[in-house]
Amino acid sequence: MQRYALGIEYDGRAFNGWQIQPDRPTVQDALETAISKMAGHEVRIHAAGRTDAGVHATGQVCHFDSAAPRPLTAWVRGVNSFLPEGVAVTWSRTVPEHFHARFLAMARHYRYLVLNHPVRPALLAGRIGWAHQKLDVAAMQLAADRLLGEHDFSSFRAAECQAPSPVKLMHAIRIRQDGHLLCFDFSASAFLHHMVRNIMGALLHIGKGNQPAEWMSELLAWRDRSLAPPTFMPDGLYLSGVSYPAEFELPSEPAQRYGLL
Amino acid sequence: MQRYALGIEYDGRAFNGWQIQPDRPTVQDALETAISKMAGHEVRIHAAGRTDAGVHATGQVCHFDSAAPRPLTAWVRGVNSFLPEGVAVTWSRTVPEHFHARFLAMARHYRYLVLNHPVRPALLAGRIGWAHQKLDVAAMQLAADRLLGEHDFSSFRAAECQAPSPVKLMHAIRIRQDGHLLCFDFSASAFLHHMVRNIMGALLHIGKGNQPAEWMSELLAWRDRSLAPPTFMPDGLYLSGVSYPAEFELPSEPAQRYGLL
Repeated sequence: MQRYALGIEYDGRAFNGWQIQPDRPTVQDALETAISKMAGHEVRIHAAGRTDAGVHATGQVCHFDSAAPRPLTAWVRGVNSFLPEGVAVTWSRTVPEHFHARFLAMARHYRYLVLNHPVRPALLAGRIGWAHQKLDVAAMQLAADRLLGEHDFSSFRAAECQAPSPVKLMHAIRIRQDGHLLCFDFSASAFLHHMVRNIMGALLHIGKGNQPAEWMSELLAWRDRSLAPPTFMPDGLYLSGVSYPAEFELPSEPAQRYGLL
Repeated sequence: MQRYALGIEYDGRAFNGWQIQPDRPTVQDALETAISKMAGHEVRIHAAGRTDAGVHATGQVCHFDSAAPRPLTAWVRGVNSFLPEGVAVTWSRTVPEHFHARFLAMARHYRYLVLNHPVRPALLAGRIGWAHQKLDVAAMQLAADRLLGEHDFSSFRAAECQAPSPVKLMHAIRIRQDGHLLCFDFSASAFLHHMVRNIMGALLHIGKGNQPAEWMSELLAWRDRSLAPPTFMPDGLYLSGVSYPAEFELPSEPAQRYGLL
Protein backbone atom coordinates (compact mmCIF):
# COMPACT_ATOMS: atom_id res chain seq x y z
CA MET A 1 0.00 0.00 0.00
CA GLN A 2 1.32 3.45 -0.91
CA ARG A 3 0.11 6.77 0.51
CA TYR A 4 -0.18 9.72 -1.88
CA ALA A 5 -0.62 13.45 -1.30
CA LEU A 6 -2.39 15.60 -3.89
CA GLY A 7 -2.72 19.36 -4.46
CA ILE A 8 -6.28 20.34 -5.39
CA GLU A 9 -7.83 23.42 -7.01
CA TYR A 10 -11.58 24.04 -7.23
CA ASP A 11 -14.28 26.55 -7.94
CA GLY A 12 -16.44 26.49 -4.80
CA ARG A 13 -19.45 27.56 -6.85
CA ALA A 14 -19.47 24.29 -8.75
CA PHE A 15 -19.96 22.19 -5.57
CA ASN A 16 -21.78 22.11 -2.23
CA GLY A 17 -18.63 22.39 -0.14
CA TRP A 18 -15.93 19.78 0.43
CA GLN A 19 -17.58 17.09 2.52
CA ILE A 20 -19.80 14.35 1.08
CA GLN A 21 -23.53 14.98 1.50
CA PRO A 22 -26.43 12.87 0.24
CA ASP A 23 -27.78 13.94 -3.18
CA ARG A 24 -25.58 17.03 -3.61
CA PRO A 25 -22.33 17.24 -5.58
CA THR A 26 -19.31 17.92 -3.33
CA VAL A 27 -15.59 18.20 -4.06
CA GLN A 28 -14.78 15.10 -1.99
CA ASP A 29 -17.39 13.13 -3.89
CA ALA A 30 -16.03 14.18 -7.31
CA LEU A 31 -12.44 13.41 -6.29
CA GLU A 32 -13.17 10.03 -4.68
CA THR A 33 -15.10 8.94 -7.77
CA ALA A 34 -12.30 10.02 -10.16
CA ILE A 35 -9.43 8.63 -8.04
CA SER A 36 -11.29 5.33 -7.53
CA LYS A 37 -11.68 5.01 -11.31
CA MET A 38 -7.95 5.58 -11.80
CA ALA A 39 -7.01 3.21 -8.95
CA GLY A 40 -9.45 0.47 -9.93
CA HIS A 41 -10.68 0.21 -6.34
CA GLU A 42 -12.67 2.32 -3.87
CA VAL A 43 -10.59 5.17 -2.46
CA ARG A 44 -11.32 7.36 0.57
CA ILE A 45 -9.57 10.77 0.71
CA HIS A 46 -8.72 13.02 3.67
CA ALA A 47 -8.32 16.78 3.18
CA ALA A 48 -6.37 19.42 5.11
CA GLY A 49 -9.46 21.64 5.38
CA ARG A 50 -13.13 20.90 4.81
CA THR A 51 -14.17 24.10 3.07
CA ASP A 52 -17.77 25.35 3.22
CA ALA A 53 -20.13 25.76 0.29
CA GLY A 54 -19.05 28.63 -1.96
CA VAL A 55 -15.43 28.64 -0.72
CA HIS A 56 -12.76 28.07 -3.36
CA ALA A 57 -9.34 26.44 -3.23
CA THR A 58 -6.12 26.93 -5.15
CA GLY A 59 -3.99 24.95 -2.68
CA GLN A 60 -6.11 22.31 -0.90
CA VAL A 61 -4.12 19.19 0.06
CA CYS A 62 -5.50 15.67 0.54
CA HIS A 63 -4.13 12.15 0.89
CA PHE A 64 -5.27 8.63 0.02
CA ASP A 65 -3.90 5.08 -0.08
CA SER A 66 -3.62 2.76 -3.06
CA ALA A 67 -1.75 -0.40 -3.95
CA ALA A 68 -2.45 0.11 -7.66
CA PRO A 69 0.84 0.41 -9.59
CA ARG A 70 0.45 3.78 -11.33
CA PRO A 71 3.01 6.44 -12.33
CA LEU A 72 2.68 9.71 -10.34
CA THR A 73 1.34 11.52 -13.43
CA ALA A 74 -1.69 9.17 -13.45
CA TRP A 75 -2.88 10.82 -10.23
CA VAL A 76 -2.72 14.25 -11.94
CA ARG A 77 -3.46 13.98 -15.66
CA GLY A 78 -5.32 10.69 -15.43
CA VAL A 79 -7.54 11.73 -12.53
CA ASN A 80 -8.16 15.14 -14.12
CA SER A 81 -9.58 13.44 -17.20
CA PHE A 82 -12.28 11.91 -14.93
CA LEU A 83 -13.06 15.15 -13.03
CA PRO A 84 -15.69 17.80 -13.90
CA GLU A 85 -14.28 21.13 -15.10
CA GLY A 86 -14.60 22.98 -11.74
CA VAL A 87 -11.96 20.84 -9.99
CA ALA A 88 -8.44 19.65 -10.86
CA VAL A 89 -5.48 17.90 -9.23
CA THR A 90 -2.45 20.23 -9.53
CA TRP A 91 0.34 17.93 -8.22
CA SER A 92 0.93 14.47 -6.71
CA ARG A 93 3.67 13.10 -4.42
CA THR A 94 4.33 9.82 -2.62
CA VAL A 95 4.38 10.25 1.17
CA PRO A 96 5.23 7.88 4.04
CA GLU A 97 2.28 6.13 5.66
CA HIS A 98 2.37 8.32 8.78
CA PHE A 99 1.54 11.39 6.68
CA HIS A 100 -1.93 12.81 7.29
CA ALA A 101 -3.22 15.81 5.30
CA ARG A 102 -5.33 17.10 8.17
CA PHE A 103 -3.54 16.16 11.38
CA LEU A 104 0.02 16.98 10.27
CA ALA A 105 -0.72 20.38 8.71
CA MET A 106 1.43 22.99 10.49
CA ALA A 107 -0.20 26.01 8.89
CA ARG A 108 -3.11 26.83 6.62
CA HIS A 109 -3.09 29.77 4.22
CA TYR A 110 -6.28 31.51 3.18
CA ARG A 111 -6.69 34.38 0.74
CA TYR A 112 -9.66 36.73 0.61
CA LEU A 113 -10.18 38.89 -2.50
CA VAL A 114 -12.34 42.01 -2.34
CA LEU A 115 -13.46 44.27 -5.17
CA ASN A 116 -13.44 47.78 -3.66
CA HIS A 117 -15.51 49.61 -6.25
CA PRO A 118 -18.94 51.30 -6.32
CA VAL A 119 -20.23 48.74 -8.86
CA ARG A 120 -20.80 45.07 -7.92
CA PRO A 121 -18.62 42.43 -9.63
CA ALA A 122 -20.22 40.77 -12.69
CA LEU A 123 -17.33 38.98 -14.40
CA LEU A 124 -16.15 37.50 -11.06
CA ALA A 125 -19.53 37.23 -9.34
CA GLY A 126 -19.21 34.53 -6.66
CA ARG A 127 -15.41 34.58 -6.92
CA ILE A 128 -14.67 37.86 -5.16
CA GLY A 129 -16.11 39.74 -2.18
CA TRP A 130 -17.49 43.24 -2.71
CA ALA A 131 -17.18 46.47 -0.72
CA HIS A 132 -18.68 49.51 -2.47
CA GLN A 133 -17.45 52.00 0.13
CA LYS A 134 -13.78 53.11 -0.12
CA LEU A 135 -11.71 51.10 2.39
CA ASP A 136 -8.73 52.41 4.39
CA VAL A 137 -6.08 49.76 3.69
CA ALA A 138 -3.52 51.18 6.17
CA ALA A 139 -6.06 51.11 9.02
CA MET A 140 -7.05 47.53 8.15
CA GLN A 141 -3.39 46.43 8.14
CA LEU A 142 -2.84 48.05 11.57
CA ALA A 143 -5.93 46.26 12.88
CA ALA A 144 -4.82 42.95 11.33
CA ASP A 145 -1.40 43.25 13.02
CA ARG A 146 -3.20 43.16 16.39
CA LEU A 147 -4.34 39.59 15.64
CA LEU A 148 -0.81 38.20 15.15
CA GLY A 149 0.46 35.64 17.64
CA GLU A 150 -1.39 33.16 19.85
CA HIS A 151 -4.89 34.25 20.88
CA ASP A 152 -8.27 32.96 21.91
CA PHE A 153 -10.22 33.73 18.73
CA SER A 154 -13.70 33.14 20.22
CA SER A 155 -14.84 36.56 18.90
CA PHE A 156 -14.40 35.20 15.38
CA ARG A 157 -15.75 31.70 15.94
CA ALA A 158 -19.03 30.45 14.46
CA ALA A 159 -21.53 28.98 16.94
CA GLU A 160 -21.42 25.60 15.16
CA CYS A 161 -17.60 25.36 15.34
CA GLN A 162 -16.45 21.92 16.56
CA ALA A 163 -12.76 22.71 17.18
CA PRO A 164 -11.61 21.53 20.63
CA SER A 165 -9.96 24.88 21.43
CA PRO A 166 -10.50 28.49 20.28
CA VAL A 167 -6.77 29.23 20.75
CA LYS A 168 -4.88 29.48 17.46
CA LEU A 169 -1.54 30.94 16.39
CA MET A 170 -1.86 33.62 13.69
CA HIS A 171 1.42 33.71 11.75
CA ALA A 172 0.72 36.50 9.27
CA ILE A 173 -1.96 38.74 7.78
CA ARG A 174 -0.86 40.73 4.75
CA ILE A 175 -3.08 43.13 2.83
CA ARG A 176 -2.16 44.21 -0.68
CA GLN A 177 -3.87 46.56 -3.13
CA ASP A 178 -3.81 46.39 -6.92
CA GLY A 179 -6.14 49.12 -8.17
CA HIS A 180 -9.68 48.23 -7.10
CA LEU A 181 -8.62 44.72 -6.04
CA LEU A 182 -7.72 44.07 -2.40
CA CYS A 183 -5.97 40.85 -1.45
CA PHE A 184 -5.93 39.66 2.18
CA ASP A 185 -3.53 36.75 2.94
CA PHE A 186 -3.98 34.89 6.24
CA SER A 187 -1.62 32.25 7.66
CA ALA A 188 -2.37 30.46 10.94
CA SER A 189 -1.78 27.13 12.70
CA ALA A 190 -5.44 26.41 12.03
CA PHE A 191 -8.67 28.34 11.59
CA LEU A 192 -11.94 28.10 13.50
CA HIS A 193 -15.21 27.72 11.61
CA HIS A 194 -15.93 30.98 9.68
CA MET A 195 -12.86 32.57 11.29
CA VAL A 196 -11.52 34.23 8.13
CA ARG A 197 -14.97 35.49 7.10
CA ASN A 198 -15.56 36.83 10.64
CA ILE A 199 -12.16 38.57 10.75
CA MET A 200 -12.92 40.01 7.29
CA GLY A 201 -16.19 41.41 8.65
CA ALA A 202 -14.27 43.18 11.43
CA LEU A 203 -11.49 44.42 9.11
CA LEU A 204 -14.04 45.91 6.70
CA HIS A 205 -15.87 47.54 9.62
CA ILE A 206 -12.59 49.28 10.50
CA GLY A 207 -11.69 49.92 6.85
CA LYS A 208 -14.97 51.84 6.43
CA GLY A 209 -14.01 54.07 9.39
CA ASN A 210 -16.66 52.75 11.81
CA GLN A 211 -14.00 51.96 14.43
CA PRO A 212 -10.28 52.79 14.82
CA ALA A 213 -7.65 50.06 14.21
CA GLU A 214 -7.06 49.63 17.96
CA TRP A 215 -10.66 48.44 18.36
CA MET A 216 -9.55 45.08 16.94
CA SER A 217 -7.67 44.39 20.20
CA GLU A 218 -10.81 45.08 22.26
CA LEU A 219 -12.90 42.88 20.02
CA LEU A 220 -10.37 40.04 20.36
CA ALA A 221 -10.24 40.47 24.17
CA TRP A 222 -14.05 40.28 24.50
CA ARG A 223 -14.03 36.66 23.23
CA ASP A 224 -17.66 37.17 22.31
CA ARG A 225 -18.87 36.55 18.78
CA SER A 226 -22.13 38.44 19.46
CA LEU A 227 -20.22 41.73 19.83
CA ALA A 228 -18.37 41.42 16.50
CA PRO A 229 -19.50 42.71 13.07
CA PRO A 230 -21.35 40.30 10.74
CA THR A 231 -19.67 37.41 8.90
CA PHE A 232 -18.49 38.55 5.47
CA MET A 233 -19.76 36.75 2.32
CA PRO A 234 -17.94 33.50 1.29
CA ASP A 235 -17.53 34.59 -2.35
CA GLY A 236 -13.92 35.83 -2.23
CA LEU A 237 -12.46 33.14 0.06
CA TYR A 238 -9.73 30.77 -1.19
CA LEU A 239 -7.83 28.02 0.64
CA SER A 240 -4.51 28.96 -0.96
CA GLY A 241 -2.09 26.52 0.64
CA VAL A 242 -1.19 24.16 3.49
CA SER A 243 2.26 23.80 5.11
CA TYR A 244 3.67 20.47 6.34
CA PRO A 245 6.92 19.44 8.06
CA ALA A 246 9.88 19.61 5.64
CA GLU A 247 10.46 15.82 5.81
CA PHE A 248 7.46 15.25 3.52
CA GLU A 249 8.97 17.45 0.77
CA LEU A 250 5.60 18.77 -0.38
CA PRO A 251 5.24 22.03 -2.35
CA SER A 252 5.73 24.69 0.35
CA GLU A 253 4.58 27.84 -1.39
CA PRO A 254 0.88 28.67 -1.79
CA ALA A 255 -0.23 27.75 -5.30
CA GLN A 256 -0.51 30.85 -7.48
CA ARG A 257 -1.41 29.90 -11.00
CA TYR A 258 -3.44 33.06 -11.66
CA GLY A 259 -1.42 35.90 -10.11
CA LEU A 260 -3.44 37.51 -7.31
CA LEU A 261 -6.28 35.09 -7.87
CA MET B 1 -34.56 62.88 -25.92
CA GLN B 2 -31.15 62.29 -24.37
CA ARG B 3 -28.48 59.85 -25.57
CA TYR B 4 -26.50 57.92 -22.93
CA ALA B 5 -23.32 55.86 -23.14
CA LEU B 6 -22.75 52.98 -20.71
CA GLY B 7 -19.72 50.87 -19.78
CA ILE B 8 -20.62 47.17 -19.46
CA GLU B 9 -18.93 44.18 -17.83
CA TYR B 10 -20.08 40.60 -18.30
CA ASP B 11 -19.22 36.95 -17.86
CA GLY B 12 -19.58 35.47 -21.35
CA ARG B 13 -20.38 32.09 -19.84
CA ALA B 14 -23.64 33.37 -18.39
CA PHE B 15 -25.05 34.31 -21.82
CA ASN B 16 -25.27 33.17 -25.45
CA GLY B 17 -23.20 36.05 -26.82
CA TRP B 18 -24.18 39.70 -27.14
CA GLN B 19 -26.85 39.79 -29.83
CA ILE B 20 -30.51 38.97 -29.21
CA GLN B 21 -31.52 35.44 -30.29
CA PRO B 22 -34.89 33.75 -29.92
CA ASP B 23 -35.24 31.66 -26.73
CA ARG B 24 -31.66 32.05 -25.48
CA PRO B 25 -30.43 34.57 -22.89
CA THR B 26 -28.06 37.16 -24.39
CA VAL B 27 -26.32 40.20 -22.90
CA GLN B 28 -28.25 42.60 -25.13
CA ASP B 29 -31.50 41.00 -24.06
CA ALA B 30 -30.69 41.28 -20.33
CA LEU B 31 -29.57 44.92 -20.69
CA GLU B 32 -32.52 46.06 -22.81
CA THR B 33 -34.95 44.51 -20.33
CA ALA B 34 -33.26 46.15 -17.33
CA ILE B 35 -32.77 49.58 -18.96
CA SER B 36 -36.37 49.56 -20.24
CA LYS B 37 -37.59 48.92 -16.68
CA MET B 38 -35.56 51.84 -15.37
CA ALA B 39 -36.64 54.13 -18.25
CA GLY B 40 -40.32 53.16 -18.12
CA HIS B 41 -40.35 52.66 -21.90
CA GLU B 42 -38.88 50.22 -24.43
CA VAL B 43 -35.20 50.88 -25.05
CA ARG B 44 -33.00 49.59 -27.86
CA ILE B 45 -29.22 49.53 -27.23
CA HIS B 46 -26.26 49.59 -29.65
CA ALA B 47 -22.90 48.11 -28.65
CA ALA B 48 -19.34 48.82 -29.80
CA GLY B 49 -18.71 45.10 -30.41
CA ARG B 50 -21.09 42.17 -30.70
CA THR B 51 -19.09 39.55 -28.82
CA ASP B 52 -19.54 35.83 -29.55
CA ALA B 53 -20.82 33.21 -27.11
CA GLY B 54 -18.28 32.54 -24.35
CA VAL B 55 -16.43 35.86 -24.85
CA HIS B 56 -16.29 38.14 -21.79
CA ALA B 57 -16.19 41.91 -21.44
CA THR B 58 -14.72 44.26 -18.88
CA GLY B 59 -15.03 47.36 -21.09
CA GLN B 60 -17.90 46.95 -23.54
CA VAL B 61 -19.57 50.27 -24.46
CA CYS B 62 -23.15 50.77 -25.64
CA HIS B 63 -25.56 53.66 -26.13
CA PHE B 64 -29.32 54.21 -25.95
CA ASP B 65 -31.85 57.06 -26.00
CA SER B 66 -34.35 58.02 -23.34
CA ALA B 67 -36.48 61.05 -22.49
CA ALA B 68 -37.07 59.73 -18.94
CA PRO B 69 -35.75 62.23 -16.38
CA ARG B 70 -33.32 60.09 -14.36
CA PRO B 71 -30.08 60.97 -12.56
CA LEU B 72 -26.98 59.39 -14.16
CA THR B 73 -26.61 56.98 -11.21
CA ALA B 74 -30.00 55.44 -12.08
CA TRP B 75 -28.43 54.01 -15.25
CA VAL B 76 -25.71 52.34 -13.14
CA ARG B 77 -27.01 51.36 -9.70
CA GLY B 78 -30.67 51.30 -10.70
CA VAL B 79 -30.14 49.24 -13.86
CA ASN B 80 -27.76 46.89 -12.01
CA SER B 81 -30.49 46.05 -9.52
CA PHE B 82 -32.56 44.70 -12.45
CA LEU B 83 -29.68 42.74 -14.06
CA PRO B 84 -28.69 39.10 -13.42
CA GLU B 85 -25.39 38.61 -11.56
CA GLY B 86 -23.25 37.89 -14.66
CA VAL B 87 -23.60 41.42 -16.09
CA ALA B 88 -23.27 44.95 -14.69
CA VAL B 89 -23.18 48.56 -15.88
CA THR B 90 -19.86 50.06 -14.69
CA TRP B 91 -20.38 53.74 -15.69
CA SER B 92 -22.84 56.07 -17.44
CA ARG B 93 -22.38 59.39 -19.29
CA THR B 94 -24.59 61.71 -21.30
CA VAL B 95 -23.42 62.03 -24.91
CA PRO B 96 -24.54 64.25 -27.82
CA GLU B 97 -27.06 62.69 -30.20
CA HIS B 98 -24.47 62.14 -32.96
CA PHE B 99 -22.57 59.69 -30.69
CA HIS B 100 -22.72 56.06 -31.82
CA ALA B 101 -21.06 53.30 -29.77
CA ARG B 102 -20.28 51.19 -32.84
CA PHE B 103 -19.68 53.60 -35.71
CA LEU B 104 -17.63 56.21 -33.82
CA ALA B 105 -15.28 53.76 -32.03
CA MET B 106 -11.70 54.65 -33.01
CA ALA B 107 -10.09 51.61 -31.42
CA ARG B 108 -11.11 48.39 -29.70
CA HIS B 109 -9.03 46.73 -26.99
CA TYR B 110 -9.12 42.99 -26.42
CA ARG B 111 -7.28 40.99 -23.78
CA TYR B 112 -6.54 37.29 -23.98
CA LEU B 113 -5.52 35.44 -20.79
CA VAL B 114 -3.71 32.11 -21.01
CA LEU B 115 -2.79 29.73 -18.21
CA ASN B 116 0.60 28.29 -19.24
CA HIS B 117 0.78 25.30 -16.92
CA PRO B 118 0.72 21.49 -17.33
CA VAL B 119 -2.60 21.25 -15.44
CA ARG B 120 -5.86 22.59 -16.92
CA PRO B 121 -7.58 25.51 -15.15
CA ALA B 122 -10.35 24.51 -12.70
CA LEU B 123 -10.98 27.67 -10.68
CA LEU B 124 -11.07 29.81 -13.84
CA ALA B 125 -12.45 27.19 -16.24
CA GLY B 126 -14.13 29.06 -19.10
CA ARG B 127 -12.47 32.33 -18.07
CA ILE B 128 -8.92 31.66 -19.25
CA GLY B 129 -7.31 29.88 -22.20
CA TRP B 130 -4.96 26.98 -21.54
CA ALA B 131 -1.59 25.98 -23.02
CA HIS B 132 0.05 23.02 -21.25
CA GLN B 133 3.30 23.27 -23.23
CA LYS B 134 5.83 25.92 -22.10
CA LEU B 135 5.49 28.99 -24.35
CA ASP B 136 8.35 31.22 -25.54
CA VAL B 137 7.06 34.69 -24.65
CA ALA B 138 9.93 36.57 -26.36
CA ALA B 139 9.32 34.74 -29.65
CA MET B 140 5.58 35.44 -29.45
CA GLN B 141 6.22 39.18 -28.83
CA LEU B 142 8.58 39.32 -31.86
CA ALA B 143 5.91 37.60 -33.97
CA ALA B 144 3.20 39.93 -32.65
CA ASP B 145 5.28 43.00 -33.56
CA ARG B 146 5.11 41.87 -37.21
CA LEU B 147 1.35 42.46 -37.16
CA LEU B 148 1.58 46.13 -36.14
CA GLY B 149 0.40 48.76 -38.62
CA GLU B 150 -2.15 48.58 -41.43
CA HIS B 151 -2.53 45.14 -43.01
CA ASP B 152 -4.96 42.90 -44.86
CA PHE B 153 -5.77 40.44 -42.05
CA SER B 154 -7.50 37.85 -44.28
CA SER B 155 -5.29 35.09 -42.82
CA PHE B 156 -6.99 35.68 -39.47
CA ARG B 157 -10.55 36.20 -40.70
CA ALA B 158 -13.37 33.73 -40.09
CA ALA B 159 -15.25 32.55 -43.19
CA GLU B 160 -18.52 34.00 -41.84
CA CYS B 161 -17.01 37.49 -41.27
CA GLN B 162 -19.27 40.24 -42.64
CA ALA B 163 -16.83 43.19 -42.42
CA PRO B 164 -16.68 45.17 -45.67
CA SER B 165 -12.86 45.12 -45.70
CA PRO B 166 -10.15 42.84 -44.28
CA VAL B 167 -7.78 45.82 -43.89
CA LYS B 168 -7.38 46.95 -40.28
CA LEU B 169 -4.87 49.06 -38.37
CA MET B 170 -3.20 47.18 -35.49
CA HIS B 171 -2.07 49.78 -32.94
CA ALA B 172 -0.42 47.55 -30.33
CA ILE B 173 0.04 43.98 -29.15
CA ARG B 174 1.66 43.63 -25.74
CA ILE B 175 2.40 40.32 -24.03
CA ARG B 176 3.05 40.17 -20.28
CA GLN B 177 3.85 37.28 -17.98
CA ASP B 178 2.97 36.94 -14.30
CA GLY B 179 4.08 33.48 -13.22
CA HIS B 180 1.95 30.93 -15.09
CA LEU B 181 -0.43 33.63 -16.31
CA LEU B 182 0.13 35.17 -19.76
CA CYS B 183 -1.73 38.32 -20.72
CA PHE B 184 -2.02 39.38 -24.39
CA ASP B 185 -3.36 42.92 -25.00
CA PHE B 186 -4.52 43.82 -28.52
CA SER B 187 -5.52 47.28 -29.74
CA ALA B 188 -6.75 47.87 -33.30
CA SER B 189 -9.03 50.16 -35.29
CA ALA B 190 -11.41 47.22 -35.46
CA PHE B 191 -11.24 43.43 -35.47
CA LEU B 192 -12.50 40.92 -38.03
CA HIS B 193 -14.64 38.00 -36.88
CA HIS B 194 -12.51 35.61 -34.77
CA MET B 195 -9.42 37.76 -35.52
CA VAL B 196 -8.03 37.76 -31.96
CA ARG B 197 -8.65 34.02 -31.50
CA ASN B 198 -7.02 33.31 -34.90
CA ILE B 199 -3.98 35.49 -34.12
CA MET B 200 -3.75 33.73 -30.72
CA GLY B 201 -3.70 30.38 -32.54
CA ALA B 202 -0.74 31.57 -34.64
CA LEU B 203 1.10 33.13 -31.67
CA LEU B 204 0.80 29.91 -29.66
CA HIS B 205 2.01 27.90 -32.67
CA ILE B 206 5.14 30.07 -32.65
CA GLY B 207 5.37 30.10 -28.85
CA LYS B 208 5.53 26.29 -28.87
CA GLY B 209 8.49 26.44 -31.27
CA ASN B 210 6.66 25.04 -34.32
CA GLN B 211 7.67 28.07 -36.41
CA PRO B 212 10.08 30.99 -35.94
CA ALA B 213 8.74 34.47 -35.16
CA GLU B 214 9.38 35.66 -38.74
CA TRP B 215 6.85 33.12 -40.01
CA MET B 216 4.11 35.49 -38.82
CA SER B 217 4.98 37.87 -41.69
CA GLU B 218 4.61 35.06 -44.23
CA LEU B 219 1.31 33.97 -42.74
CA LEU B 220 0.04 37.56 -42.91
CA ALA B 221 1.21 37.94 -46.52
CA TRP B 222 -0.56 34.74 -47.66
CA ARG B 223 -3.95 36.29 -46.83
CA ASP B 224 -5.30 32.76 -46.63
CA ARG B 225 -7.09 31.55 -43.52
CA SER B 226 -6.74 27.91 -44.60
CA LEU B 227 -2.94 28.07 -44.19
CA ALA B 228 -3.07 29.42 -40.60
CA PRO B 229 -3.13 27.42 -37.34
CA PRO B 230 -6.52 26.64 -35.75
CA THR B 231 -8.68 29.22 -33.98
CA PHE B 232 -7.85 29.30 -30.26
CA MET B 233 -10.62 28.66 -27.69
CA PRO B 234 -12.88 31.64 -26.71
CA ASP B 235 -12.47 31.04 -22.96
CA GLY B 236 -9.77 33.64 -22.19
CA LEU B 237 -11.03 36.45 -24.46
CA TYR B 238 -12.16 39.78 -22.97
CA LEU B 239 -13.36 42.97 -24.70
CA SER B 240 -11.39 45.22 -22.35
CA GLY B 241 -12.14 48.68 -23.72
CA VAL B 242 -13.24 50.94 -26.59
CA SER B 243 -11.71 54.32 -27.51
CA TYR B 244 -13.75 57.27 -28.81
CA PRO B 245 -12.87 60.81 -29.96
CA ALA B 246 -11.91 63.02 -27.00
CA GLU B 247 -14.93 65.32 -27.53
CA PHE B 248 -17.20 62.67 -25.95
CA GLU B 249 -15.19 62.63 -22.72
CA LEU B 250 -15.75 58.93 -22.11
CA PRO B 251 -13.43 56.84 -19.86
CA SER B 252 -10.38 56.37 -22.09
CA GLU B 253 -8.47 53.64 -20.23
CA PRO B 254 -9.44 49.98 -20.50
CA ALA B 255 -11.47 49.02 -17.43
CA GLN B 256 -9.30 47.06 -14.99
CA ARG B 257 -11.25 46.28 -11.87
CA TYR B 258 -9.50 42.94 -11.25
CA GLY B 259 -5.81 43.58 -12.02
CA LEU B 260 -4.74 41.38 -14.94
CA LEU B 261 -8.22 39.97 -15.25
